[in-house]
Amino acid sequence: MDAVAQVVVAVRDALLDLPDGSLVLVACSGGADSLALAAATARVASRGRLRAGAVVVDHGWTTSASRAARRAAVQLKDLGPDLGLDLVELVRVDAHGPGGPEASARTARYRALDEAATWLGADAVLLGHTLDDQAETVLLGLGRGSGARSLAGMPAVRGLYRRPFLGLRREQTAAACAALGLRPWNDPANADRRYARVRVRELLPQLERALGPGTAEALARTGDLLREDADVLDQLGVELAGAPVDALLAVPSALRRRALLAEARAAGCPAGALTHRHALALEKLLTAVPGTSTDLPGGVAARRGNTLVEFLHSPAIDPA
Amino acid sequence: MDAVAQVVVAVRDALLDLPDGSLVLVACSGGADSLALAAATARVASRGRLRAGAVVVDHGWTTSASRAARRAAVQLKDLGPDLGLDLVELVRVDAHGPGGPEASARTARYRALDEAATWLGADAVLLGHTLDDQAETVLLGLGRGSGARSLAGMPAVRGLYRRPFLGLRREQTAAACAALGLRPWNDPANADRRYARVRVRELLPQLERALGPGTAEALARTGDLLREDADVLDQLGVELAGAPVDALLAVPSALRRRALLAEARAAGCPAGALTHRHALALEKLLTAVPGTSTDLPGGVAARRGNTLVEFLHSPAIDPA
Repeated sequence: MDAVAQVVVAVRDALLDLPDGSLVLVACSGGADSLALAAATARVASRGRLRAGAVVVDHGWTTSASRAARRAAVQLKDLGPDLGLDLVELVRVDAHGPGGPEASARTARYRALDEAATWLGADAVLLGHTLDDQAETVLLGLGRGSGARSLAGMPAVRGLYRRPFLGLRREQTAAACAALGLRPWNDPANADRRYARVRVRELLPQLERALGPGTAEALARTGDLLREDADVLDQLGVELAGAPVDALLAVPSALRRRALLAEARAAGCPAGALTHRHALALEKLLTAVPGTSTDLPGGVAARRGNTLVEFLHSPAIDPA
Repeated sequence: MDAVAQVVVAVRDALLDLPDGSLVLVACSGGADSLALAAATARVASRGRLRAGAVVVDHGWTTSASRAARRAAVQLKDLGPDLGLDLVELVRVDAHGPGGPEASARTARYRALDEAATWLGADAVLLGHTLDDQAETVLLGLGRGSGARSLAGMPAVRGLYRRPFLGLRREQTAAACAALGLRPWNDPANADRRYARVRVRELLPQLERALGPGTAEALARTGDLLREDADVLDQLGVELAGAPVDALLAVPSALRRRALLAEARAAGCPAGALTHRHALALEKLLTAVPGTSTDLPGGVAARRGNTLVEFLHSPAIDPA
């Protein structure tokens, strides 16, 4: 199967469950992955069952980034009468928010995509993440060392969002672009070694040489399996949340820590701010003398009561 | 804390629960990790509460390996009257068995250690694995891509076996040997890039550069957390084993696959031979037409019955 057929089949298979006439939006950065995704989606839609559009996001980082976004939009509009997308939107987002440039760009991008999907009544929004992205995500999670959830790969489907290319390698999307005459943007940030993801990307071929062929696939599969594990265990933790200290001490640590973290989240701790260190501190409270307490992110404190661990907003740092 | 104090404290802490007068055996290869372990155990035992001995294993690979084993035994006997080990046994094992040289050496080594422990009435057998070994184990598991169990690190305690150095870096054991005047053996196999473990060992410093300091620790912690997760989930799988197809289809894939794998093991499949591919094949049987079957390792076949997946020894390849 040639590269174009591969990307088209991947998109078709990812959309089989959508009813006839559904509107599918492709999130496009102008890079090879999302450009191939938009072109493949246009081909699938050209068979008449679905309608397709693209949302090209311009983060406005640099003039060359904005130019690349415009060029991507033009290429998508020019796909040709038979393979045309019903609409191509170029959206400029403001990527200057809290939490560093990467995080705020991400937040701004998803907000823009959510708004476009609502405005246009889209039934699905497609993202161009590939197997390589998935493998890199797992490696990045290893550096955190916070367990299954931090290693969990991106899901193929979550809410409106779908990732049809999680089974394809990045080189296949580049080959599809070349075969279709599309000129993808090579974002210079993808070569900027200040980003951990870029450093990890450079390491992946070496890991494949050390561990043998199929390593990227094994990493991606690991991410999938650990996400499924984490879903089951986190749910068991939620069910145990609020249980008395004695009951928590009677279950394995893997469940006990998750129950305490679930309570912490319910009490207002931001999920992303809770680390393994917090889990250990909470677990230690179980065997501490009543009255012992520990501070958690988001102005929450946990305190060992007589039979329960109690979670309370610490008035000293409560923003309210 | 200097390197000698670090290794001694690690051993002392790992043996706190042993009753007075217990006999502790150290498995020694002559390398820096296990030589430092033997010397540290001798120091802990010299305080009078415990008795200690060493079992030096000679795999008989090469004459230089056998010479290194003898030299390690001599060094351990010469630790001095105050720090002496009660006994030092040099055991020659036959490492030519089924499953390749690494696997058969491992099997022969553990058999020799088990026999020595039984013969001498040992209460614990200490192994010199360090945090670096643990991190490498996790990376090797990534290459398999079979989920949490394949990434699970080595446990600190399993049966008689204990690993006091899982929190120490390899460089600390080398520094302890240098400070104690011990001359460890540098096994040439540790530089032989035909072994995946050696290639992974070379990669670890690069991974630390890419992901930042503390990466080896994060990898080791990941191994611990995923072992705890796998223990909980595998146990839930055992409890579900034998459940009707309908019940299995009603639980998440992470549990369903483990239930089917538990049944396969109970039916005689060797645990180590079951891969993710087998798990997927078993899962597929749940939605297959009754009568469909799939072959598993160890001469076992699984067959979709009317309400159950049935496991049977395939008469054609049953060795009995």
